[in-house]
Amino acid sequence: MTGSNKNKVTVDIHHRKYTVVGQESPDQIKMVASLVDQKMDEIRYAKPSFDTTQLAVLTALNTMNDYIKLKQDYDALVQSQRKEDRK
Amino acid sequence: MTGSNKNKVTVDIHHRKYTVVGQESPDQIKMVASLVDQKMDEIRYAKPSFDTTQLAVLTALNTMNDYIKLKQDYDALVQSQRKEDRK
Repeated sequence: MTGSNKNKVTVDIHHRKYTVVGQESPDQIKMVASLVDQKMDEIRYAKPSFDTTQLAVLTALNTMNDYIKLKQDYDALVQSQRKEDRK
Repeated sequence: MTGSNKNKVTVDIHHRKYTVVGQESPDQIKMVASLVDQKMDEIRYAKPSFDTTQLAVLTALNTMNDYIKLKQDYDALVQSQRKEDRK
């Protein structure tokens, strides 16, 4: 066992290589990369004239929006659970 | 009142304009855009040689990773709440 849990994985997104370092397993990192690649493809399908930067920025925007909404749901659930515990 | 709840907002991310259409309020869309812009800046600070595409892809990757982790936490919370309800 080593003290470090960091994994370093090289992934391919829209024909460019990215080195991702994280505590997640290599499989998890590859799955996340494949999701981003897929989301970029979905936008390219709808907007064929968009370049890679535009596809990546819009993917980041959509994902951030999903994250914020899920965070709000998560916080509301934690809150309701606390109220339930107090009963 | 109209039947449509769609808002159309133009935001500026790393010196390019993006038109975002969504059911979220214009303020929410601007907040999400500002978060993405900020995350790209943070990566640029650590990797000054990266171009905008690389910054945007890495921001999308990090955000997707955060989303997946939060989704796992959310699902676990819903699951534990169901078990609690069954008692």
